[in-house]
Amino acid sequence: MEYQRIIGIDPGYAIVGWGVVEYGGNNFKTLGYGAIRTQAGLPFDLRLESIYDELSAVIEKYSPAEMGLEKLYFAKNTTTAIDVAQARGVITLCARRHGLFLGEYTPLQVKQAVVGYGKAEKNQVMHMTQMLLGLSETPKPDDTADALAIAVCHAHSSFSRFRAAAIRR
Amino acid sequence: MEYQRIIGIDPGYAIVGWGVVEYGGNNFKTLGYGAIRTQAGLPFDLRLESIYDELSAVIEKYSPAEMGLEKLYFAKNTTTAIDVAQARGVITLCARRHGLFLGEYTPLQVKQAVVGYGKAEKNQVMHMTQMLLGLSETPKPDDTADALAIAVCHAHSSFSRFRAAAIRR
Repeated sequence: MEYQRIIGIDPGYAIVGWGVVEYGGNNFKTLGYGAIRTQAGLPFDLRLESIYDELSAVIEKYSPAEMGLEKLYFAKNTTTAIDVAQARGVITLCARRHGLFLGEYTPLQVKQAVVGYGKAEKNQVMHMTQMLLGLSETPKPDDTADALAIAVCHAHSSFSRFRAAAIRR
Repeated sequence: MEYQRIIGIDPGYAIVGWGVVEYGGNNFKTLGYGAIRTQAGLPFDLRLESIYDELSAVIEKYSPAEMGLEKLYFAKNTTTAIDVAQARGVITLCARRHGLFLGEYTPLQVKQAVVGYGKAEKNQVMHMTQMLLGLSETPKPDDTADALAIAVCHAHSSFSRFRAAAIRR
């Protein structure tokens, strides 16, 4: 049995949720999850650097081969939106530097992949993620739970399976 | 006479304008300028990596101590805006990794610093930048000319002068 090791990421500049899972034979194993937090008062360049460094440490600890990363969409343009996008750029660079294959998913795609319904409520997504991963509790904060849902979405996406098959050849 | 060596950056994901100047005794010396371009068809993580690598090479060639970087503002939210912000995050990380002090300026601040008038037209900004830097031609593309204007703005900003004084102590 071949397993895919995937890190799911919910991008942000104050909190970056992450979760590492293994997927194979339609089963999941949860290896670890958490949240990278950056200090509010810190200059923004230092916050970005700390995201890069802490995410590098997580990737080096768990050695995932692929990353599922949430796509950004902002209805309103705000400074916050720009800053989340800046952090997402740093996360993308970090994935690339560590040789991870990157899959990107909208919140709609995550809901469809996890619950089978694009308009699912947040708590349904969390419930299904928890069940699929066999976790006794809902991971906190929400950013971490979201990251695990993104990892599940990446595992379920046919593109990911196709690519995994290609890698095995 | 102490000189500040400054790199000005006009952020983007398809084109990153850059210009390196030295400033001291109210005079400028232009050391180099250009544009980093990324290929349109390339996956976005590779484009971000190429920006990081090419900007690193420019910084290592010219050894600026400070970076002037344009602040982003988008009236409308678009995929383009998100992608420019992602590239800007990577540029910020690159500045930080190379130990550059970072100054951030709105287009209004750049116009005020270069022309003395926040509502100046683009060609006035370019003309003044060219004069201040003693260039016989307007640098092309516009992104490069903008980057040089941002470098001039950073040099003229009192915060930059204050910091330069602090460094010299």
